[in-house]
Amino acid sequence: MMQRPPAEPGMSIDEIDTPALVLDLDALEANLDLMAKLAGAAGVRVRPHAKTHKSPVIARLQMDRGAVGQCVQKVGEAEILAWGGVPDILVSNEVVSPVKLARLAALSRIARVAVCADNLLGVAAIEAAAADAGVRMPVLMEIEVGSARCGLPPGPEALTLAQRIAASPHLVFGGLQAYHGRAQHQRSLEERAASIGRTAELTGQMVEDLRRAGLPCPIVGGAGTGTFALEAASGVFNELQVGSYVFMDADYGRNAPAPPFRQALFVLGTVMSVPSPDTAVVDAGLKALATDSGLPLLWQRDGIAYVGASDEHGKLAVGPHATPPRLDERVMLVPGHCDPTVDRYDWYVGLRSGRVECLWPVAARGAMS
Amino acid sequence: MMQRPPAEPGMSIDEIDTPALVLDLDALEANLDLMAKLAGAAGVRVRPHAKTHKSPVIARLQMDRGAVGQCVQKVGEAEILAWGGVPDILVSNEVVSPVKLARLAALSRIARVAVCADNLLGVAAIEAAAADAGVRMPVLMEIEVGSARCGLPPGPEALTLAQRIAASPHLVFGGLQAYHGRAQHQRSLEERAASIGRTAELTGQMVEDLRRAGLPCPIVGGAGTGTFALEAASGVFNELQVGSYVFMDADYGRNAPAPPFRQALFVLGTVMSVPSPDTAVVDAGLKALATDSGLPLLWQRDGIAYVGASDEHGKLAVGPHATPPRLDERVMLVPGHCDPTVDRYDWYVGLRSGRVECLWPVAARGAMS
Repeated sequence: MMQRPPAEPGMSIDEIDTPALVLDLDALEANLDLMAKLAGAAGVRVRPHAKTHKSPVIARLQMDRGAVGQCVQKVGEAEILAWGGVPDILVSNEVVSPVKLARLAALSRIARVAVCADNLLGVAAIEAAAADAGVRMPVLMEIEVGSARCGLPPGPEALTLAQRIAASPHLVFGGLQAYHGRAQHQRSLEERAASIGRTAELTGQMVEDLRRAGLPCPIVGGAGTGTFALEAASGVFNELQVGSYVFMDADYGRNAPAPPFRQALFVLGTVMSVPSPDTAVVDAGLKALATDSGLPLLWQRDGIAYVGASDEHGKLAVGPHATPPRLDERVMLVPGHCDPTVDRYDWYVGLRSGRVECLWPVAARGAMS
Repeated sequence: MMQRPPAEPGMSIDEIDTPALVLDLDALEANLDLMAKLAGAAGVRVRPHAKTHKSPVIARLQMDRGAVGQCVQKVGEAEILAWGGVPDILVSNEVVSPVKLARLAALSRIARVAVCADNLLGVAAIEAAAADAGVRMPVLMEIEVGSARCGLPPGPEALTLAQRIAASPHLVFGGLQAYHGRAQHQRSLEERAASIGRTAELTGQMVEDLRRAGLPCPIVGGAGTGTFALEAASGVFNELQVGSYVFMDADYGRNAPAPPFRQALFVLGTVMSVPSPDTAVVDAGLKALATDSGLPLLWQRDGIAYVGASDEHGKLAVGPHATPPRLDERVMLVPGHCDPTVDRYDWYVGLRSGRVECLWPVAARGAMS
């Protein structure tokens, strides 16, 4: 079941039921503006990743500022965005099951929908679905440029795959998907620059090989919040698939330097037990916050640390000089990792000047298939 | 939004859309039967924890086998169970916010609903909500018996709190909540026996102090899947709050000996890329599987290991003697931690003899507040 909204517009923070997923709307808008400005200055397009926000509302705010469309990872996310009015969607991921490809092909009637492939069987499956639905689908080839995940190594085999896509009457060669995920959280700028330097070199060579074979790349896409300035400056990439910049999280905050965005996403929790002067327990644990990239941080509460998460409890250690949290007091937590945290909630609570301004559904929450 | 069901009754495993949360119904029923038998033999009641399954259907299967009711951690879970017909619910956790307590008090009109407290302010808040709603609410006192989380240390202060509860015209003293969470995953039986030995000693002394003060404990509750046999044999506990036994997970499988239950819960994934002979990528990553207690294990696929999770991808390492997974092949994954994995899905897909027998909603999915 979808959960009830935890607040209504006009409420104060203390009236929000918790745990709740809270957005600082001023910070969100500043982040959206800044990315549009930076990408515009670099002369590259922005196609933000909706796997982070899962919201047609935030997608529209991005496109209002010039984003050309949205990326998603899952067919279910593409459906929610297309049904919510997004006209141009790239599934930046392989989809191989016929039932999912039939859903994507059906969606092509109401939105431009592109998908990725990294081998011949995958291309044949997309082709069959497009032929069956009577649509022509853009397919990007994913190349392996450092992530060591999906993707074909750039080279002759990749060229053959691109030619196979381009030769199909049911497909359109859409370009390259070239994302280096592991580089996003490399801590030093030197490491990130070295990684993306290599990524851009490999990708640029593939673009050139394709051009010589008569296959220009409409999209050369990749990049994330940790490295986008590098891809933007490379001269190779023309679309940035940035996601986390809208919200930020504690893990991105540990990059040096941290990405130039404000923390806009919080989990609001409530102190439910104060078993001792140096300990408090909040109602937001493993189910309320993703801990895969570290525990959450407390926002603007010096001397208090979130030190342990169980399913429904978060344990706070209160330092000797900190003001101890009171029973039923609200605390703002900065999630360790924004994407999987958002995916646990049905509602965003938008805050401005300390009051609830709006409720937005996390419309693609749980859209994993 | 609630997600569409990933299958329909009668389908084969290969027809299930993925990622999907799958139950082996034979294993589930065997687990339910075994717990009922073990608790019956020990002469203790079972009040299973619905924070694991979040399902009125599974609650009913437990109560059909003699369970006296259900535990939950959250008011939202209590609501879903009560609305789904569960007549006796214990919120085995502190609830302090007036808005939540008003919801619990309202629920008392259709089910017996008890809640925990560990300090005087919390008791006063419950009392106010009960008085306002015109109901009388059972309140258990949570004592700290090893978890180092919520709860009052057994002793004079705890006795005073119990007397405060018992003296209220709007409350009923319901007994003791005495759960040692950290003991559940201590790996050796010796460690677990030492922990629960101390827990039972502390709890038994508190029960005796209360009895002398004229306050018998209708419920002395605690225990989990890792230690329930110890609490059951202690002579102190009369209710077991076991949760994970219905499903099991990889982390409980690392206890020595492992609890005597069968693996009933799986995440079904699909191979979406085979970038090399020794690597495959499945469509179930951080959003599909809780990784807080370790990565998932592959079920009945020797020589293949799940070695890395990103948001929507899981990377498999294929050993030299293993049969490599094919593109679009289904794989069964044993989650590292069952409770937060279940909480990400809207549907259970019940399998028997290789076919889908039923779909059940994860009705309290996301019920965090």
